[in-house]
Amino acid sequence: MMTRPDILVVNPNSNAVVTAGFDAALAPLRFSDGPAIRCVTLEDGPYGVETQADVESVSLPLRRLVEREQGAGAFVIACYSDPGLHVCREGTKAPVFGICEAGLLTALARGDRFGVIAIGEGTMARHQRYVRQMGLYERFAGERPLKMSVAESAAGENTLARMIEVGRDLMRLDRCDVIVMGCAGMSRHRRPLEEALGVPVVDPVLAAVTMAIGAVQAAGA
Amino acid sequence: MMTRPDILVVNPNSNAVVTAGFDAALAPLRFSDGPAIRCVTLEDGPYGVETQADVESVSLPLRRLVEREQGAGAFVIACYSDPGLHVCREGTKAPVFGICEAGLLTALARGDRFGVIAIGEGTMARHQRYVRQMGLYERFAGERPLKMSVAESAAGENTLARMIEVGRDLMRLDRCDVIVMGCAGMSRHRRPLEEALGVPVVDPVLAAVTMAIGAVQAAGA
Amino acid sequence: MMTRPDILVVNPNSNAVVTAGFDAALAPLRFSDGPAIRCVTLEDGPYGVETQADVESVSLPLRRLVEREQGAGAFVIACYSDPGLHVCREGTKAPVFGICEAGLLTALARGDRFGVIAIGEGTMARHQRYVRQMGLYERFAGERPLKMSVAESAAGENTLARMIEVGRDLMRLDRCDVIVMGCAGMSRHRRPLEEALGVPVVDPVLAAVTMAIGAVQAAGA
Amino acid sequence: MMTRPDILVVNPNSNAVVTAGFDAALAPLRFSDGPAIRCVTLEDGPYGVETQADVESVSLPLRRLVEREQGAGAFVIACYSDPGLHVCREGTKAPVFGICEAGLLTALARGDRFGVIAIGEGTMARHQRYVRQMGLYERFAGERPLKMSVAESAAGENTLARMIEVGRDLMRLDRCDVIVMGCAGMSRHRRPLEEALGVPVVDPVLAAVTMAIGAVQAAGA
Amino acid sequence: MMTRPDILVVNPNSNAVVTAGFDAALAPLRFSDGPAIRCVTLEDGPYGVETQADVESVSLPLRRLVEREQGAGAFVIACYSDPGLHVCREGTKAPVFGICEAGLLTALARGDRFGVIAIGEGTMARHQRYVRQMGLYERFAGERPLKMSVAESAAGENTLARMIEVGRDLMRLDRCDVIVMGCAGMSRHRRPLEEALGVPVVDPVLAAVTMAIGAVQAAGA
Amino acid sequence: MMTRPDILVVNPNSNAVVTAGFDAALAPLRFSDGPAIRCVTLEDGPYGVETQADVESVSLPLRRLVEREQGAGAFVIACYSDPGLHVCREGTKAPVFGICEAGLLTALARGDRFGVIAIGEGTMARHQRYVRQMGLYERFAGERPLKMSVAESAAGENTLARMIEVGRDLMRLDRCDVIVMGCAGMSRHRRPLEEALGVPVVDPVLAAVTMAIGAVQAAGA
Repeated sequence: MMTRPDILVVNPNSNAVVTAGFDAALAPLRFSDGPAIRCVTLEDGPYGVETQADVESVSLPLRRLVEREQGAGAFVIACYSDPGLHVCREGTKAPVFGICEAGLLTALARGDRFGVIAIGEGTMARHQRYVRQMGLYERFAGERPLKMSVAESAAGENTLARMIEVGRDLMRLDRCDVIVMGCAGMSRHRRPLEEALGVPVVDPVLAAVTMAIGAVQAAGA
Repeated sequence: MMTRPDILVVNPNSNAVVTAGFDAALAPLRFSDGPAIRCVTLEDGPYGVETQADVESVSLPLRRLVEREQGAGAFVIACYSDPGLHVCREGTKAPVFGICEAGLLTALARGDRFGVIAIGEGTMARHQRYVRQMGLYERFAGERPLKMSVAESAAGENTLARMIEVGRDLMRLDRCDVIVMGCAGMSRHRRPLEEALGVPVVDPVLAAVTMAIGAVQAAGA
Repeated sequence: MMTRPDILVVNPNSNAVVTAGFDAALAPLRFSDGPAIRCVTLEDGPYGVETQADVESVSLPLRRLVEREQGAGAFVIACYSDPGLHVCREGTKAPVFGICEAGLLTALARGDRFGVIAIGEGTMARHQRYVRQMGLYERFAGERPLKMSVAESAAGENTLARMIEVGRDLMRLDRCDVIVMGCAGMSRHRRPLEEALGVPVVDPVLAAVTMAIGAVQAAGA
Repeated sequence: MMTRPDILVVNPNSNAVVTAGFDAALAPLRFSDGPAIRCVTLEDGPYGVETQADVESVSLPLRRLVEREQGAGAFVIACYSDPGLHVCREGTKAPVFGICEAGLLTALARGDRFGVIAIGEGTMARHQRYVRQMGLYERFAGERPLKMSVAESAAGENTLARMIEVGRDLMRLDRCDVIVMGCAGMSRHRRPLEEALGVPVVDPVLAAVTMAIGAVQAAGA
Repeated sequence: MMTRPDILVVNPNSNAVVTAGFDAALAPLRFSDGPAIRCVTLEDGPYGVETQADVESVSLPLRRLVEREQGAGAFVIACYSDPGLHVCREGTKAPVFGICEAGLLTALARGDRFGVIAIGEGTMARHQRYVRQMGLYERFAGERPLKMSVAESAAGENTLARMIEVGRDLMRLDRCDVIVMGCAGMSRHRRPLEEALGVPVVDPVLAAVTMAIGAVQAAGA
Repeated sequence: MMTRPDILVVNPNSNAVVTAGFDAALAPLRFSDGPAIRCVTLEDGPYGVETQADVESVSLPLRRLVEREQGAGAFVIACYSDPGLHVCREGTKAPVFGICEAGLLTALARGDRFGVIAIGEGTMARHQRYVRQMGLYERFAGERPLKMSVAESAAGENTLARMIEVGRDLMRLDRCDVIVMGCAGMSRHRRPLEEALGVPVVDPVLAAVTMAIGAVQAAGA
């Protein structure tokens, strides 16, 4: 393999604080002789992806970005609604990972029933449909919201405390034994949350970039 | 993080050719500043894991190995029957990955319905039970055997040709759009098989080691 | 109820022949004192909705149309991929029906296992994901393509003969006992196809408009 | 089409108040040039269908009625246990709809998870078996009883208040987002219940008659 | 417990040859100090239970028989359509077993995927609905008909040869590894069929009477 | 049939009190001219099977026992984790029953949704995986622990009172209508528990031995 492959991680919303957050959190997956991991913010994305209209509004811009970046070895769509996942896959031969899909699949290797910490309530019906679409419903314990906006959860002081509270509800009431953080902007809370809860906590951005590393390295082998 | 974490990949059978095969195939996942990936052969394992008795015979030896190696950051059990997976998980706080579980979960991020190329016919009922246990049955297209022994498939000249034939049956008759190689000893065939079939082909050893890298790097973050 | 409610049936592709076809086929659901049924062609839609990019390209235009037409009593999205269904639902208090969803649900009241006659092969993975998303997989017998374009199937002389052939395969090989026509442009073939096959054949456009009539009439009661 | 088709809606219990109730509620589905909708009470039916013996006692009388009325374009069995549904289907070429089946299928086009307001507790195990039989279990949020008899619920002053209370439990505790009224005698409460709960409420009698209209009009096209 | 409990095995059809057949086949379950096993033919039952009308026609007569025989320790309904199973359960505190239900459940302890040898084609949709109702669909390999009447299959010379042929199709094409005989009148073929096929063959009448013995003996303990 | 067949019931743990307990409880299944039922304690088994390591530690000893006892007509593994079930099946042509599998299957003939009374909390994830493996998840209401050790539950005075309490929670909170006792050492509580709860209570040891009787008697027919 001549050149280092490239993994492009796209934040579909225009909140650069979120991009910067997971960019920093991805440091442990940046190896000197491993794939380059480039994090970019989608131009013209909404400030947060909350409604279905937000989801739809970024799918074709993501597709165009994927088409422009044909040199990339793999793509990661870093929004828990996996917007545009299938339309991006249609537009490139490179593998495309969605952080929700990759996060849930990774969780299934760490526990028996997964629980999801969502940001708000508005996305839960959409996530549930998606769990059924992926055929993973028998392993789904439940999803509970922080009842915060993406911006609040990324910035707020109380976010970790609230995540611990919601995580405990998911464990006790929904009987999950592994937690998935249902947002791209929660990376820095993964480790303290895992320590507080005592069960594995999966950061979906790390999960997806990990899968992307495996895919590009296998392809180049 | 002071020291490089360690991923221990255990071949539960005593066929060192198989171990050497995947050890070589893991080269693309060895990064100079990434986790060390050590491949070992289980002492006293059977020459191949084919029967249920073979599976059972290695579960406690694997557990003991895991207990002896408490310094490892993660473990990978490199046999497609995932022998001892849950008993090993019980014996350590480090994450333990089975190549079947990790291979199937990774396949679900690459296609809609997965097909499995098995070695022999004797393992198919066991694999099918396991797919149900994992709750992944709705995405399971089918499993078809090479009708070879593990040793033959690892060594034989005709293995690739036969894998292509079986892969085409899985695509055409069972309508899969992603293939999982159902053995730890097929790594060197992944790339030519993928090129011949035109759909993603997942090597479960690479899939599991990839997940292990993600887990140890996240833990150390 | 003062005014006659209005059902807006939108063809998301720009092929006015398809719109005219189902407009005519909806005659039996136009009652003098029932809801008005208006069929419109989405401006700027692609000529046919075949790829995932086609699907994505019409979702926001459909949403905008729904928002503009707030007086409508119900909406029907007349494309078998149900593009924009959830984003349109988010944009109005009026019920929104997708012809695929309504067609499959209606078929479940007419037989035990449904088979789908698709136009081409490219849409089958998408349809299958969608059947899982709807939680209807246990009743899904299979989907088989005509291997025609939307335009060919709408216009062609041989379409009916080919539909009968595919329908027979669905009955014999996939053991379905009810057929859903997987396209908005097949309405005129429903009756002869049903006569030839001897099992119920569901036109999804009629199914969705029927549900829309029920919803608007109940709302006005 | 020469003659107006006829939809025969049969109340399998002998409580003519229930028949009169849904007869009135069906007014919005009676179009001057649409199918005639005739509501009849099964002679010799039990006063209410509550036990399994009640269900069985009406299946053959319903079959005989269907055989006598071969001119009807479609039949609706207006009891939430769908008694005799399959035996009636066997006895006629006309489509036969059960209000439970049609009500649940219609609900699936209006929300993601359906909840059912039952009359009493005795019917819940039967309904649950039936949801599994229909293959709709993944979308089933729950069923909760009013703890009233059919007669009480049809006549009583407090029925609506109790329905609102039970509906709120279904939404809050079982997380449904669409409600199905689990009885043929609740039609007049649909609209105020929907207004109180803020989610779609499906009257299964209207749902089934709507499907019947679609079927007879398509057949005559 | 003073008196020997009584298991009443009811043939819902009026074909006494069928009753005599399973009465003889039950000899190995008649122990000198075990429950009495009485086989009776339902008066007024149809000559064979083939149509849904046949099924419905015996449910209330079975219920009345159960109510008359309140001294029985357990009941077995010896028809593969399990007619009247739930209405009989409602009418007695004694356990009531259906041979289809008991046969399938017993098969699940003998193999991974069950196949069913049916008599005719007309009952297959009913059986499939019932498998879903029982929640056993993931273990259901398939059902294939002998294309004989009940009478033919009970009497005919060629029945065994045809059963072997159908059993082989179920094994090879549907990949079952345990067979259930889908009729009360096939008992005498169980052993030669099992020898010919090399997989367990379950006689549902024996399966149900076995469960009944367990239940009455436990109750008396 | 010349000789009385033999059913060997093996307690995989070395607690002879448990063996003696179910040996006594099996009295009602010992018929003078029926199969001999021999209860044995596995030499070298752990004192109780609680952890996954306990489960694994007995699978090969059970296999060896099965191989030594080739004259037995059937085997029952009398531990609710069904240790070694599939490896024992591989080692003999005689049928092998696990008490968990047989207990759950038997429960499905006595109620619609089963609840399980477990001993401790540590086994619940294992049991849940197993329910999925068996494909019975749609009928699984829940499992709740006594929070006792196997030894305590077998000996303790308070066991019955605690079982009633847990059983009531399973009925009220998880809506089960049949209970399975999740341990081989609870046999003597079956009858009073059933009387207290008013729903069928299944002793899995009796259930498995019952199935074994049916199998050996059919084989000898």
